Amino acid sequence: MTSNETPLVSIVMGSDSDLDRMAEAAKVLEEFEIPFEITISSAHRSPEMTMEYATTARDRGIHVIIAGAGRAAHLAGVIAAHTTLPVVGVPIDGGPLDGVDALYSTVQLPPGVPVATMAIGSGGARNAGIFAVQVLSLNNPDLQTKLEAYKSELSDGVAKKAARLAEVGYKNY
Amino acid sequence: MTSNETPLVSIVMGSDSDLDRMAEAAKVLEEFEIPFEITISSAHRSPEMTMEYATTARDRGIHVIIAGAGRAAHLAGVIAAHTTLPVVGVPIDGGPLDGVDALYSTVQLPPGVPVATMAIGSGGARNAGIFAVQVLSLNNPDLQTKLEAYKSELSDGVAKKAARLAEVGYKNY
Amino acid sequence: MTSNETPLVSIVMGSDSDLDRMAEAAKVLEEFEIPFEITISSAHRSPEMTMEYATTARDRGIHVIIAGAGRAAHLAGVIAAHTTLPVVGVPIDGGPLDGVDALYSTVQLPPGVPVATMAIGSGGARNAGIFAVQVLSLNNPDLQTKLEAYKSELSDGVAKKAARLAEVGYKNY
Amino acid sequence: MTSNETPLVSIVMGSDSDLDRMAEAAKVLEEFEIPFEITISSAHRSPEMTMEYATTARDRGIHVIIAGAGRAAHLAGVIAAHTTLPVVGVPIDGGPLDGVDALYSTVQLPPGVPVATMAIGSGGARNAGIFAVQVLSLNNPDLQTKLEAYKSELSDGVAKKAARLAEVGYKNY
Amino acid sequence: MTSNETPLVSIVMGSDSDLDRMAEAAKVLEEFEIPFEITISSAHRSPEMTMEYATTARDRGIHVIIAGAGRAAHLAGVIAAHTTLPVVGVPIDGGPLDGVDALYSTVQLPPGVPVATMAIGSGGARNAGIFAVQVLSLNNPDLQTKLEAYKSELSDGVAKKAARLAEVGYKNY
Amino acid sequence: MTSNETPLVSIVMGSDSDLDRMAEAAKVLEEFEIPFEITISSAHRSPEMTMEYATTARDRGIHVIIAGAGRAAHLAGVIAAHTTLPVVGVPIDGGPLDGVDALYSTVQLPPGVPVATMAIGSGGARNAGIFAVQVLSLNNPDLQTKLEAYKSELSDGVAKKAARLAEVGYKNY
Amino acid sequence: MTSNETPLVSIVMGSDSDLDRMAEAAKVLEEFEIPFEITISSAHRSPEMTMEYATTARDRGIHVIIAGAGRAAHLAGVIAAHTTLPVVGVPIDGGPLDGVDALYSTVQLPPGVPVATMAIGSGGARNAGIFAVQVLSLNNPDLQTKLEAYKSELSDGVAKKAARLAEVGYKNY
Amino acid sequence: MTSNETPLVSIVMGSDSDLDRMAEAAKVLEEFEIPFEITISSAHRSPEMTMEYATTARDRGIHVIIAGAGRAAHLAGVIAAHTTLPVVGVPIDGGPLDGVDALYSTVQLPPGVPVATMAIGSGGARNAGIFAVQVLSLNNPDLQTKLEAYKSELSDGVAKKAARLAEVGYKNY
Repeated sequence: MTSNETPLVSIVMGSDSDLDRMAEAAKVLEEFEIPFEITISSAHRSPEMTMEYATTARDRGIHVIIAGAGRAAHLAGVIAAHTTLPVVGVPIDGGPLDGVDALYSTVQLPPGVPVATMAIGSGGARNAGIFAVQVLSLNNPDLQTKLEAYKSELSDGVAKKAARLAEVGYKNY
Repeated sequence: MTSNETPLVSIVMGSDSDLDRMAEAAKVLEEFEIPFEITISSAHRSPEMTMEYATTARDRGIHVIIAGAGRAAHLAGVIAAHTTLPVVGVPIDGGPLDGVDALYSTVQLPPGVPVATMAIGSGGARNAGIFAVQVLSLNNPDLQTKLEAYKSELSDGVAKKAARLAEVGYKNY
Repeated sequence: MTSNETPLVSIVMGSDSDLDRMAEAAKVLEEFEIPFEITISSAHRSPEMTMEYATTARDRGIHVIIAGAGRAAHLAGVIAAHTTLPVVGVPIDGGPLDGVDALYSTVQLPPGVPVATMAIGSGGARNAGIFAVQVLSLNNPDLQTKLEAYKSELSDGVAKKAARLAEVGYKNY
Repeated sequence: MTSNETPLVSIVMGSDSDLDRMAEAAKVLEEFEIPFEITISSAHRSPEMTMEYATTARDRGIHVIIAGAGRAAHLAGVIAAHTTLPVVGVPIDGGPLDGVDALYSTVQLPPGVPVATMAIGSGGARNAGIFAVQVLSLNNPDLQTKLEAYKSELSDGVAKKAARLAEVGYKNY
Repeated sequence: MTSNETPLVSIVMGSDSDLDRMAEAAKVLEEFEIPFEITISSAHRSPEMTMEYATTARDRGIHVIIAGAGRAAHLAGVIAAHTTLPVVGVPIDGGPLDGVDALYSTVQLPPGVPVATMAIGSGGARNAGIFAVQVLSLNNPDLQTKLEAYKSELSDGVAKKAARLAEVGYKNY
Repeated sequence: MTSNETPLVSIVMGSDSDLDRMAEAAKVLEEFEIPFEITISSAHRSPEMTMEYATTARDRGIHVIIAGAGRAAHLAGVIAAHTTLPVVGVPIDGGPLDGVDALYSTVQLPPGVPVATMAIGSGGARNAGIFAVQVLSLNNPDLQTKLEAYKSELSDGVAKKAARLAEVGYKNY
Repeated sequence: MTSNETPLVSIVMGSDSDLDRMAEAAKVLEEFEIPFEITISSAHRSPEMTMEYATTARDRGIHVIIAGAGRAAHLAGVIAAHTTLPVVGVPIDGGPLDGVDALYSTVQLPPGVPVATMAIGSGGARNAGIFAVQVLSLNNPDLQTKLEAYKSELSDGVAKKAARLAEVGYKNY
Repeated sequence: MTSNETPLVSIVMGSDSDLDRMAEAAKVLEEFEIPFEITISSAHRSPEMTMEYATTARDRGIHVIIAGAGRAAHLAGVIAAHTTLPVVGVPIDGGPLDGVDALYSTVQLPPGVPVATMAIGSGGARNAGIFAVQVLSLNNPDLQTKLEAYKSELSDGVAKKAARLAEVGYKNY
């Protein structure tokens, strides 16, 4: 937990080797000043801890769970099986199949148990954070305003790069 | 729109050929008595309509957008580019690549513009509906209760099938 | 359960739609006269039942668990997380990805929690049954003898077909 | 823009990280002395800029648009939705799926909105430039002559390498 | 040839089994009243005919070549090797790999020899026709007007379907 | 065996379910009047028979072995391990992976033990027969002449179809 | 062999280049104090040695065979063809297809000849060792106890990492 | 050409960047003392040279052509279209698709025009050389003897490595 406030978002990953990717989700939440917790629990190596984590999340005040895992990435699906909260899944790249296994294992859930899957890797982790903010913004006008500002910054960032490219030319960029 | 209430969820698909899959999302929303709208707009064939649809959704009172499309499925991403609402993407199967193209086109969005991607096809559409209910339940205790009941029904349904299999044997099932 | 004897092998599948494939495992066990049970439990829709099933299997006298599931096939992995018994996984084909998703979800388990994965579909289910018999044969000379006879039958079956082809020619086969 | 002439070709990319690949298209256009512009605009992060870019291209005198993007590469498709100009798409490699996602997202467009897709990566960017020259050559005999010369150079280049290999042998090449 | 005018577009396919797909390109050209020819020539089975076809196309007045083939689809690449005209490739689905082989064989050309690749199958063939019209429109204001009308029809078609869905509801559509 | 002459080519397949595909190889050999044998032997179910088959083939006068199998298609590789004859492999389609598994299992042999792999399925089987004839033609001028005639027929066949298409038009073909 | 006891498990690999991966299986067996042997034999380059190895394994007292190979990985399947022992296959990554070829070649065995396939690469090798211990534990209560302790250690390891992450925060981990 | 003798095998590659892989084929031919030539010709960049090369090969005394190329690897297929000689194809790895594109483009040839495809990359090039020797050995008892010696060496090499592993143990290997 990164503040004294009750966390609204919980980030969980299957292994500490996923941390460099999943940190992107944490950074977004800090940018938007959303209280969050971040932890490690494995669907396969610590299944009871994972179940306990999932079944208590709603009562602990969590609104959105972000779960990242690699290879046969069951973490998000196992958590979704044990909670009615929205679960966002991040397939982690790595290993010989480069995250295609994690993508299929995260996204191809059966009817009844959704996992909201993001892109493979750190970009997906960042988007998981933004998506959590979008969900929280539904009842928080401040967050909505911040999201609109963030969208403008994205656009402005592209415009600045385009301007610089026009100015210096592609050979000097 | 299926009721007189202001819709909270909007279902949109790129082509009427996607309707048999996307109807699964609609059915879920009816089961949970969520007012919703359902429409057709193509990212490629009706881009202005799609942009208009996306930019006005939040002001029309929509909380979650569910967008389904096939092949180079840009619909969910284009909508996410124009709104700060949570956008749920459903890759539609069909065509020679059987929905792998739609999955990659829907899920592999760049940092900054998330699309919450569900499984390929009608199961993913059903899960998109459930996920929307999960998001709405964050500020609606009734929906939370209904989701818990739904989860119990899922489990009971499996238990009944297991009981029947035990009773009649696998050859007579 | 198909006899009064304590079952040594347990077949479990995530959905009754998997039964036509998983029945192949059951048929093999009947051919080798191995007492077995067969049931349905979903990693996602009935997670507590699945956990209960997995944690009690060893004490109920089960030696080998055969678990079949499709798409984001978590069943075998979830069971393996909760038992020290050998778990054999059968990826079920079906859906747009034709079982590649189930294969990756079943086989790509992290270090520490193995699932012995068979081929996709009914052939894999049949082989799961044979593999269970091979495991049981390690302390059962009768089963070893039966397995050797089975292997001879496989070979004889091919030889008979070759003989018939030689006799009637490829156009009349 | 690289000259005072009105650009005939416009190169656009979704991110400045694509520039090293897309520069290959620019180099070709310089070799053939085609006036061109090169800019950055993202389908997802700067959608209005992209739409503005696409809808005005024809009136600005552009004949061919070359659009490069990676992952869920929507840029070329979004532009094609907003113009009747020929749009050439370059799937950019990078990320865990190595450009297969970008290829599928660029090429699998629905009927009505074509994108002329090139090979993944810098080779595809180079070919996008050549293809643009081929289109322009239809009403420009000088360009046709240059293209024929270019084709001869390609062939001569291979012949020289073959001659050198024959002379020095494969061990000393 | 479908008229007495000199054909501007040439459609060629590797086998008459590709005709049902490639006919979509022909229909588009008829809709836009573009004179075209349509023929069969195989890169592998009739290589001299294919080379003759490619080397003479420009002098015969052809502006755009549309080449469709399946499996190891070399037709478009071989033609592009022998002409400086723009070559549009259509990967044909069929066979065990469902057109992925044709897509890779058509699109992954080396630097120097571009093939403008369309989507796999009949949708790609239709788009090849539209793309050819777009190229021809660069010096033909009438075609430009027709293309804009076509784009409006696409958009109107979607709007009409959306209106009907709103009117009759998703269950009666 | 289809004649009294000593067979020069041996066709072997892993299962009689492969016969409809592998018959294409046999038909080619009959067209070219090459004496051949055709049989069934499984790398996995009748390994001794397969080894015996492979180790004796050269002494029985066989010049080329054509081996077709599906899924984890080991047959061609196992035979190549036991002979110095040229072995041609045909990956058979079928099963959830549609022959991609058979292709990889047949073609990705380690250095030292080549298998000359053909296309997946019946087209590959036909080509295996033609390739065997090409090998035999190296010391048989008659076969060389026949191959040249066959090549002309292929080309003529395409030309006739092109002529008919030109005559009747694509709508009446 | 690593002790004076009769080995119960045999590890075999197709090439010494696989040793760094397959050593993971050996390490597990040492951790569990299982006597084992480890050797090299190629299905393609030393087929007789492989057959001899496989056919004598049961009589030498081996209970489980672990076979690792890359590319067209036939080793496990060839061994399974020659023994009734349980055979565990480890697809080795490496080469352009990164182990997908080895996975398909190992897992897609035909009915009658199972290979228990593990994950691609060193993680799969480690799991092969654990799976062998699980099989041996069926008649060895000591091993069962050790496996339960191992499972607790896995879980404790995750818990310790989670505790450390909670303590130091994700930025200092 | 590497000797004064008329070459029996011709190695050709699409680019000099393929030379490090294709050199493996040349080395094998030198080991077996087969006179060969080695050259460069591109199906796309030097099509006339390639056609000339292919159509004259038989008359120049060539018995087997080995053709290696990457990406949309048309070289082997184009050559096979112009000769009745056996053509062996080597898909070269490299580029974003790592040789899968080259494999599909080389192996999926249509009925009538076979290309004997080897594994992707340098191992495939080596095997192409061995396969050529196998073809030449059909009428050359000396080569047959050498091939048998080569096969024994392969097997002995494995045996020596196995002996060393047994002697020094897996930790010191």
